[in-house]
Order: sequence, then structure tokens, then C-alpha cells
Amino acid sequence: MELSKAHGRLVVIGGGEDREDDCGILKEFLRLAKGAKARIVVMTVATDAPSELGGAYLAAFKRLGVDEVNVVDVSSREDTKAEKRLQLIQDATGIFFTGGDQLHITTLLGGTRMHGLLHEKFEKGTVLGGTSAGAAMMSNSMFIRGESDETPRFGGMEIGPGMDFLTGAVIDTHFSQRGRIGRLLTAVAHYPQDIGIGVDENTAMIVQGTEFEVIGEGVVTVVDAGGITYTNLPNIGEGDALALYNVKLHVLSAGHHFDLGNRCPVIAESSVKERKRKESGASKKRPKDRAKG
Amino acid sequence: MELSKAHGRLVVIGGGEDREDDCGILKEFLRLAKGAKARIVVMTVATDAPSELGGAYLAAFKRLGVDEVNVVDVSSREDTKAEKRLQLIQDATGIFFTGGDQLHITTLLGGTRMHGLLHEKFEKGTVLGGTSAGAAMMSNSMFIRGESDETPRFGGMEIGPGMDFLTGAVIDTHFSQRGRIGRLLTAVAHYPQDIGIGVDENTAMIVQGTEFEVIGEGVVTVVDAGGITYTNLPNIGEGDALALYNVKLHVLSAGHHFDLGNRCPVIAESSVKERKRKESGASKKRPKDRAKG
Repeated sequence: MELSKAHGRLVVIGGGEDREDDCGILKEFLRLAKGAKARIVVMTVATDAPSELGGAYLAAFKRLGVDEVNVVDVSSREDTKAEKRLQLIQDATGIFFTGGDQLHITTLLGGTRMHGLLHEKFEKGTVLGGTSAGAAMMSNSMFIRGESDETPRFGGMEIGPGMDFLTGAVIDTHFSQRGRIGRLLTAVAHYPQDIGIGVDENTAMIVQGTEFEVIGEGVVTVVDAGGITYTNLPNIGEGDALALYNVKLHVLSAGHHFDLGNRCPVIAESSVKERKRKESGASKKRPKDRAKG
Repeated sequence: MELSKAHGRLVVIGGGEDREDDCGILKEFLRLAKGAKARIVVMTVATDAPSELGGAYLAAFKRLGVDEVNVVDVSSREDTKAEKRLQLIQDATGIFFTGGDQLHITTLLGGTRMHGLLHEKFEKGTVLGGTSAGAAMMSNSMFIRGESDETPRFGGMEIGPGMDFLTGAVIDTHFSQRGRIGRLLTAVAHYPQDIGIGVDENTAMIVQGTEFEVIGEGVVTVVDAGGITYTNLPNIGEGDALALYNVKLHVLSAGHHFDLGNRCPVIAESSVKERKRKESGASKKRPKDRAKG
């Protein structure tokens, strides 16, 4: 599967990002979108409350120093043809998709001129951000539905095509918070060619080309079934529990990098820093009473 | 770490086992304890409601055809010395630990003559069963507390010594249902020599020697950090998110076997059966409309 050669970056947020205090992830999105000179479009296509949610992001981005923020809502395929909307997207330096239902995004934008324009902008270097449903839709494979806090089972989730800004992956969100490893394992058991990526709340992966870096307070969990040696999936029926041997799993916190092409973590500068900090005995955050022996 | 050479079996249940309908797991426990001729002791040491919970298991085992079932409660270390209690354990062909708080088990039984007797019985061939807290205490490493549905973080869980009927492991329960992969990953990051075992509700692992088989409706998830190539754990502080590269993960449903000594799944008879069933095209459970293409 060919991975993306686009020049833009993706800011893929697992939902629940801070919009009130430090706003670390939104700030990083803005930085990649040219900072204070950014022209931001907030896409509310996924949500049933576009004015409320659009207004919240508009306020947050303005508070972070951006003058030009516009909300573009799409509630019908007809809406995707409106020249004004297309022009705002054309002029944007950063485009942000709110949460809601990812199927609204595919069903309303899929195959439209607006969809084409978004890909064009992304390929030329515009940063695309998205949270929750706005993140889930970014991969080629997309969760349509799925159980949380559940045993991996045949029928426990449904995958369809996403908007394909990130190829070779299936993205899940609210990952640790909603106990979604079961459904992600079920997804990659069905499609081992896709790398399963679970993004925690208030956490994001910043994708550039075939590599991503993690930012935020949680982790990105990578589940790679490419090397599994056995699965019972071809032989079980609806509701049956899965068996999978030798899945590879990586847990990546802020500063860690992953190479999607080679399916492996990259020893990042931050890891080196951590090691140096340790060697110099300068780990400030470690509680003094951590080890008593 | 030396694995157990005991002759008894362990029936390690992830909580929430069926006690009303088919009772598949409890039946298997009784079968291993000599069936209708079994002499069962229900240990209620973990729970604060010993008569209620003990009564429920007593009723369930009687309904399943066992005449001799006794509840042994221990609410103080003095209780462990009572000859009558020790005699019941001595005579038992199967000993079952209810749920509750696993720390009650270690703190009340640890190092007592009763503890020694339980090990002696187990080593000579008596089956030990346990559910929830009664399962968590069985390994050498034991969860004392830990967050559910949480990012793997430093400080997100606490591990202490368990009752050590299963060496080289840390057992977690209610695993998929409570989203506990985060805390199990944190546990094995601290102690990669232990294999992390997450048992789902109404699911059990049947341990004999260094191998176990899965029964029940969910899965047993095995998390093996023995081969991790990097962790940030030595360099982070309280509340910081974990990084772990190259964890091995196995998902095992009913009929699948795992070799704890060699840390790998065993291609079991049931897998072979599944394959044969497939080859003969006789998979009855597969819905007909499963694949349309």
C-alpha cells in the first residue's frame, strides 16, 4: 500500500483536546498553519450542532491570536458546491474538522469538488486538523461503528473507507479513555495491511509524509497485525471471540516518532534527551520516594 | 524466573462468570475437582459479604450436583488457625476463591499455616479456582490498585506480591470490559520478566504446569514486554505517559493454548479443528451474508 507523498501535515487529535487553558495541541495546529498569519477554516460537517461547536473553535482560535477564522458548515451535498465555501477553503492555511459523526463527513463530502479541493490543498502543504470524528475520517480505513470496553469479537465493529488523507492506517480516538483496544484489534485482524492507530484524548499525532510524532498528554497506541502468525477470523461467526498470535504493539507518548512505512518507532531526539537527563541525574520529575530499596 | 512444577490446576476467572445458566466455567472447575464426588471449599476471605457470596457459590455448586460444599471464611489471621477450617481445606478436592479485594487475601492468609497448606494441596494436585480478586491474587505479581480506561502512565497502578500459585505472571481481570490494557502495559513495563495476562469476564484460563488453555466466552489477552526495545519508564515521573516499543500481544479465545515457559501460543487442537472445518467448508456459524463480493 502506497503511503502519502503529500506535503501538508495532519494533526490527528483523539478528542477532548484542551480548548480553554494551555491549548497546546490547537497552538501546534496554528503554528503549522502559519501562526498569527493563519487563515483558518473550521469544518463542522460532522456535527449536528454546527453553530455551537463551530463558535467554540472560532472563539478558541481567536483567543490564540488568529484574526481570520471562518466556520464552514456542510449539511447537504449541495452545500459543497457553494463558491463562497470553496473559496474559504482555497484561501485557508489550516483546515480543522470538528467532532461529530465521521459518516457525515464521508457521506456529504465524499467524491465532491470540495473533497478534491481538500486533497489538493493538503498535497500542496496546507495543514489539516481534526478531532474525534474529524480524526477518525482521515485514514483510508475508518471506523463506522464499534463497541467500547469490549472483548475483540467478530461483528464488534464495522470499518468502511475514510477520506484517505493518511493511507495504510485505521485511526481510532478516545482510545485509552473508552477502552477501544478490542475494536482496534478486530479492525487490524480484518485488515492487517492497515496499521491500527489509537489516539488518546487531549493527544495528537502530527503526520508528515510517512512519519508521525506524538504531542499532548496521553499516548498513541500502535497495533500492527502485519506479522501475525495466526488468526481464527476466517473460521468464526458473528459474536465469536477473536484469536490473534503475535501482534506487535507500541505505546508512544509525547515526543516519540513512528515510521509508518517501515512500521516501527524511531528513536527520537526526546528519547535521547530523556536518556541524557537520566545519565546526568537531572530527572526533576521523578518523585524522591519512588524507590525505597 | 522458575515456573511452577505443581501438579494441581488453576482455574483463573476474569470475574462475572455465569452462575445461573450453563455455568460452563464452574462446571469445568468441578470436573477438574472430581465431578460429583468433589469436596469443594469456597474461600470468602476476599469479600466483605462472606455469607451472601459464599451462599451464592454454595447454591451454584450444589445445583451442579456436588453434595459436599463448605464455605470457609477468614476475617482475621486468627481464623486461619482454626483446625476445622484447616481440615476442610485438607479434605477438599477443589478450592474456590470468590471475588472481593485481593489484598484481603494476601494480608490475612500470607505466611500462615493455611497459606502453606493451600500450596501443599495445589502442589499435590488439588484444583484451585478463583474469580476477580480470587484470580488476581494467584500470580506472583498482583495488582493492588489501578485505573481502568486510562492511558498507561507512571503511577497509574500499583503492583505487589501475590499468593504465587502462578509464577512469572501478573494477572488482571474484567479485562476487556473495564478497559485495563493501559494498567497491564504499565505493569509489564515495570516488570518485563512477568507475562501480563488479562482475563475477560465469564472467561477463564486453565493452568497446568507452564501451559494454559482458555475457556469461556471472552478472550485472554497476553502482553509480553520481555522483548521491548525501549521504554521511557526510568526517566519519567508521576503521571507521565509511558512509551514502550515492540510489545508482543496475543489474543486467545476458547480452545487456544499458551506456553508460559516459552512465552508463545501453542497451535492447539481447536485451531487445527477450525482449519479443518474451513477446509471442508463446514463452518456453520459464519453468517451467509458475511462477504458479498
